[in-house]
This record gives sequence, structure tokens and C-alpha cells, in this order.
Amino acid sequence: MRAIDIITKKREGIELLESEIEWLISAYTNNEIPDYQMAAWLMAVLFQGMTAKETAALTLVMAKSGDMVDLSEVPGIKVDKHSTGGVADTTTMILAPLVAAAGVPVAKMSGRGLGFTGGTIDKLEAIPGFETTLDRSRFIANLNKYNIAITGQSASIAPADGKLYALRDVTATVESIPLIASSIMSKKIASGADKIVLDVKVGKGAFMKNTESAIKLAETMVNIGQLVGRETVAVLTSMEQPLGTAIGNSLEVKEAIEILSNRGEPALRDVCLTLGAHMLVLSGKTPTAAEGRKQLINLLNSGQALQKFRDFITAQSGDSTVVDNPTQLPQARFVQEITSPGQGYVTAIDADQIGFAAMRLGAGREYKGQVIDLAAGIVLQGRIGQYVKTNQVLATLYTNDETRLKHAASCLNQAIKLDELPVSAPPLVLGIINKNGFHERLD
Amino acid sequence: MRAIDIITKKREGIELLESEIEWLISAYTNNEIPDYQMAAWLMAVLFQGMTAKETAALTLVMAKSGDMVDLSEVPGIKVDKHSTGGVADTTTMILAPLVAAAGVPVAKMSGRGLGFTGGTIDKLEAIPGFETTLDRSRFIANLNKYNIAITGQSASIAPADGKLYALRDVTATVESIPLIASSIMSKKIASGADKIVLDVKVGKGAFMKNTESAIKLAETMVNIGQLVGRETVAVLTSMEQPLGTAIGNSLEVKEAIEILSNRGEPALRDVCLTLGAHMLVLSGKTPTAAEGRKQLINLLNSGQALQKFRDFITAQSGDSTVVDNPTQLPQARFVQEITSPGQGYVTAIDADQIGFAAMRLGAGREYKGQVIDLAAGIVLQGRIGQYVKTNQVLATLYTNDETRLKHAASCLNQAIKLDELPVSAPPLVLGIINKNGFHERLD
Repeated sequence: MRAIDIITKKREGIELLESEIEWLISAYTNNEIPDYQMAAWLMAVLFQGMTAKETAALTLVMAKSGDMVDLSEVPGIKVDKHSTGGVADTTTMILAPLVAAAGVPVAKMSGRGLGFTGGTIDKLEAIPGFETTLDRSRFIANLNKYNIAITGQSASIAPADGKLYALRDVTATVESIPLIASSIMSKKIASGADKIVLDVKVGKGAFMKNTESAIKLAETMVNIGQLVGRETVAVLTSMEQPLGTAIGNSLEVKEAIEILSNRGEPALRDVCLTLGAHMLVLSGKTPTAAEGRKQLINLLNSGQALQKFRDFITAQSGDSTVVDNPTQLPQARFVQEITSPGQGYVTAIDADQIGFAAMRLGAGREYKGQVIDLAAGIVLQGRIGQYVKTNQVLATLYTNDETRLKHAASCLNQAIKLDELPVSAPPLVLGIINKNGFHERLD
Repeated sequence: MRAIDIITKKREGIELLESEIEWLISAYTNNEIPDYQMAAWLMAVLFQGMTAKETAALTLVMAKSGDMVDLSEVPGIKVDKHSTGGVADTTTMILAPLVAAAGVPVAKMSGRGLGFTGGTIDKLEAIPGFETTLDRSRFIANLNKYNIAITGQSASIAPADGKLYALRDVTATVESIPLIASSIMSKKIASGADKIVLDVKVGKGAFMKNTESAIKLAETMVNIGQLVGRETVAVLTSMEQPLGTAIGNSLEVKEAIEILSNRGEPALRDVCLTLGAHMLVLSGKTPTAAEGRKQLINLLNSGQALQKFRDFITAQSGDSTVVDNPTQLPQARFVQEITSPGQGYVTAIDADQIGFAAMRLGAGREYKGQVIDLAAGIVLQGRIGQYVKTNQVLATLYTNDETRLKHAASCLNQAIKLDELPVSAPPLVLGIINKNGFHERLD
């Protein structure tokens, strides 16, 4: 086979054979095809798209390009959860202990944050002593003992995706739905998940800016799941405004503790219950999402979910006393309140602007490998639709670098908009996509 | 500026600024942008196209990337001619002395053949002693003395185009009309032409397979000429069957002598007269193409065109006695006639198949730098529409490598098709495109 023929075929809109996609990706990963030919192919894919069959073939060859995690030593159906990335999105830290408490093994590989979105591994590292790199034997042992283990994603998971993503990043070929879908799904499949729940974010603070493209992405991933035999359900959730109230690593751990303690921001709690309910259905624990939701609420009420979080922290060498005494988490030296310049209804809280403001306070990374300030971030005190008075506190900024406050404060002032007339907040869960298509929320 | 932003803009179909195109191409030529970003940009151009303004900007920056030949020491309007490449296309070797004999300075940089198309430099090298590399002073001196000079295109002409073309060749991005147009025009502009006549070939033996795309290419080049101040006229000519009867270097020199001697294949003569007539009009020598044509016929009749060919050969150190004694040209050791297996009307002579057959006999190159057999090639003895009898000679093969005959003979048998019913040959000159649009032939 020759790369030029495969590029030409894709350029002309002809469906590629599975064997052609396998050869292309394998040869590229083995440095037998130069970056410039792969770049031309990626741009042709961006314009011509990929069929479901092509996308599944791409996903599988990328998944198989490195280690395929074998979780057969852990009994039960392993259900993984992936979010497409948002702001104040503490769902993994809440869902993992919550679902584990329901008896479903949660074996997760997570990443670090970049740009305006955070990463679970960074957040967990805000807990003193917490270890985010587990070797295989400890990972499996923790799963068997506690039903829960989270580790940083190793470079040996889907290395073909890593190489391809780095090239997409510099050739303006990130924004292709089949390429995004296969990138996400290849890592989930290589990580050993039997079934997958996807949280596809839509809105200003998400990668997918409109519902149409988010549904397309969700459908593509659900189709891949079906074609490769890993049942997948996608939940479409709004990211028009930040999901929770906290943005930043320590601050989000604290917020996770709040939710697991059966308190906290209802929106974040609602999304976690919906995602968790679908994880329970996929695992076979409950027949319907509504029943799964009830079971999860019971685990929050009884304190079992919070206890699972304590056990999880201890199992990964962290100090679980933070759960009962969150002041032991890294604290910021500089704190500044942002007050409302006038009165009115909150009509917009631009999630991406808030995310960037948090990044500028030190909570996130502008480039890979940047050291972050675990204590830095923002806590919001308003939501869309709420009425605020002049000088009422809208948000609190946290940082260890006083020079960063001014710019972040100005970003925040621009991100929150007031108006005389009220607006209603957008619904949080926009729909569910499973193998039978699109549904209004099922729980 | 950043390459990624320019790729994204093109991908989204937004017109690029001239300054963006200039920066992109200059940075790429200076190795400041990697091949993979340029490959992604080229594929985006292939899908999104380029506006007239963008195409002109690309042409100019490529032209200016190397030497810009200054022909101001040569009095008069210098009109260059370019053909998009075909089979049995001896037009340059005929036109150059013919138009020079009419008093128009012909300053040409020509190339070598590749694949099924030949190159004028190879053909001229079939003439014993002929030098195809002239330094600047000799090039100018010959022009001032004889009105004619042809030299091989140096690497210092439009090097950006050279680098870009090499990348297009391996990334399936050759087939983009604005990229083809700017590639051709950048070299003509850098070569110092004041005005340009283009011979755009259409049909099986040409790069443009249908009239619609050939007209598009011609219009694009005429537009570039207008935007950069180098008036350009394009003549659309049919390449459904080979233009002349000879394919191969020595054989084409011999055919050029035939035409310049006022004999030879009428189709080839007709196309040369049309192209030459438009060169005369652009140079200001004649007000209409019809008058230009008459003047050129007189130069053929009077022997002045043939004498100019002799002078031209002498001026470039060649042995001009070949003009009167073509057996002094390289002769093939092996000659084989191809006869008709049956009787009927010739309905097709696939020009590309014939071109590949000639290449396989040694007349052309499969890869750059390959040594060719100057004596090798094919002489056809039939044209579309002609009636042939069983065993009548259809073509003669020439080569110095007997082992090549069998495969070439089988190619030729497949390329020439007979049928009981006659077909009419397609018209040769399909139209003229100038700044006022498309016209039926004007001469």
C-alpha cells in the first residue's frame, strides 16, 4: 500500500477499507509515513468525514497501538466514564466513589488539565500525600478491595492517538468529529472498559459549541462502541455556565466533599446522579436509570458515598482527614471578592472566560508541563437567572501570586453579565444518546 | 503570524490577506514552517479553492522567491509560450523559430520530460552539439542577434514553487486549479516574459481530462496575468489523440523540421499557427490573429522559419546540418512496425497510452534524472476517423533496447481502437480565453 493512494481515495470521498486504515495508522506510528502525508490525510478527513465503519477501524487500530489493559482479574462489569471537558466539572471525583459505593468497579485512567479545562489527576494531587501513579498490581488490588482506583494515563495507552493528536494540534485538524470520537474512544477501549458512559458537554465552556455538533459527536462515539462491542451511552450536558461553583484543584476537592456529603450545588449533583445512574444501568446493577438515581441518592444520604471517598484516598496514600477538615487542603495566600457593580438578573456566566480567569490565577496550564498552583481558582456565588444587588459578592478569587489578581478580576467582570429582565437558566441535561438514538433524559 | 491560524482560516473558507500568503510561502521556503503544516494548508486549498486575489498573491510570492530574469536589454515585447503538457507536442520547437522569424524575441526557459509527457530541453539535446545551458550574457546576446534563445530552467527560478510542487506530489494535492495555475504562471513571470500565450491541453493525453476544468484552469491563469500586469491569452487544444505523429526526442526534432519546411502533419501545423498568431498579436506585430496566421504561413512558405531554426541551432553550438539531413540525428538500432489486426475506422488513439508506450521504449522518464534514449519513440501513421485495412501499418516503434519492444507493442495495440462505423475527429482548437472571456477560435 502507498500513503499517497490512501490520501487520494479519502480526498475523493471514497470509503477506505479497514485494512487501509490499519496499514496507514500502523505505518505512521512506526515512523514509516512522514508527518506531511498524515497531515494531508487528516485535512482530507476533516473535509470528507469518515463512515461509521472507517471510524471504528481507526479507533481500534489506535487502541491496539499500545497496551490493552486487561481487567479480567476484577470481577464484574467495568463501566468507565469520560467527560469531553468543561469548567467547574468535578464529576469524576464525585462519581467514582459514588458509583463504587454502589458496587460497580470504577477503574479509571485520567489526565491533567490544559487551557481552560481542568484534569482529575491535578485535582486529586491537591489532597496531601495522594499518589496518582499506580502500578498494575496496586491498581488491581485496590479495585478488588475498594471497587475504585484512579491512575494517570500512561504513554503506553493508545500511543498512535497521542502521535496523531500532536499532529492534529498543529495542522488545524482537531475539529473533526470522527477524529475527536476515535481519539476519545481509543483511550477508553485501551484502558479496559467493558462499557462506557460519556458526558458530552455543549455550550460556551465546552469544545462543542452547539447541540447539533454535540449530538453528532455523541452518536459517533455510541456507534463506535456498538461496532467494537463496548456498549456506550452518552449524556448531553449544558456547559453554558460553569457546572459547579468551584474552579481550581483544592477548591474542586472541597466541592466534591460537599456533594458527597449530600450538600452543595444542585446542578453539579444532578449531572453526577444522571451519569452515575447510567453507569449503574450499564453495569447491570439496576434495570432503569430512575432506579439507579434512587440508589445513588440513598448512598449520599447514608454517608456510604463519602466513606468510599475516604477509603479511596487512603488506598492511594492520601490523607483522608481532609474529608472532614478541608482546611488541610492547600490554601491560597491571597483572596479577593468580586462584587456586583450594579443590580439585576445574571444573564450569562461565560464558562470559558471563567476557566481562563482561573488558569490565569494559576489553577490551570497554558502549556503542557507547566507547574500549577493547587490552591488557586475561583468560587462562584451566582448562577444564571439569579437576582443580585449592587455590591453583592459574585465570586471569590484565590491565588498565591498577588500580581495575577487584577487581570483575573477584569476577566471575571466581563464573564458575568447582568440585565434588568430575568432569563431562565438552560436545562442541565439536554438528552441521552444510546444505541436506540436520542432521548430526553431517562431518569 | 502563525501557520496554524492561516491553515484554519483557509479551512473555514475565509479569504487570506496578501500579507498572509506572502508570509506563509516565504516562511516555508526559508524552512521556518514544517512540511506537515504546509501539507495541511495545501489540502485545505484543494477543498476550499482560492480567490483570484489569493491566487495572484501566491503566484507573485513564488515568482519572487528566486531570480527574476531581467530582459530589458532585449528590445521589444517578449512573449513567452507555455504548454500544459501533452503527447507528440512539438509546438515549442516549431513556434520558437517561427515567431522569432516574424521579429518577436523568443526568450524561453524550458524543462525536461517526466512520465508520458516530453520536454523541449530533452528534444533539443537530440541535435548533436546543441547546448541547453546558456549563461545570462550568451542568452541575451543570442536574443539580440537572432531573436531566439532557449535554455534549461535553472533551480533559481521560482524555488518556492519547486519546493511546494515536490510536497504536492507526495500529498495528493497536485490536482488543485489555483495551485496548478500559480505554479505555471510563477515560472513564466520569473523568466521575464512581458506577455504569455498558454496552450492548455484537454483530453485523455492531457492533465486536464475535460473541457470544463481546462477552461477553469485557463481562466485562472488569464486572471493571474491580468492581476500581475502580464497580459495572458490561453488557447484550449485537444489532446484526445497525440498532436503530431512523432513521440520521442530525435523523432520530434525531425517532425519539427518537417513542419518548418512547410510539410508535415496538418494538426500540429494548425495548432502552431494558432498559438503563434496569438503571440504575434500580444507582441504588437499584427492587429488580429488572422493576420498573424497569414504572416506565419508566409514565413513557412518562404523558408525563413526553417532558416531561423538553422541559425538557432548554430547559435547554441548545435550542428545545423541536421535540418537538411535528419539522418544525422540519433538513430534507433531496433525498429518494429505495428500493423492493424483488422480493418475499420480508427475511433481512438489514447494519447496517454501512446505516451507511456514511448516512455517504455526509452524516450521518457519514469523518475526524475533517469537517462533517456534520444533515438527511441513512436511514429504514428493514422489519425482518428481514418479508414485502415488489415495489416496496414499503424505505427513504427524505435528503440536501442530490443527487450522493450514487446511491452510497448502490446500497449500500442490497446491504445489504437478500430470500429466498423466512422467517427469524426474532435476539433483541434477548442477555444480561446483572454481577458474578455471565452471565444471560438479567432484566427
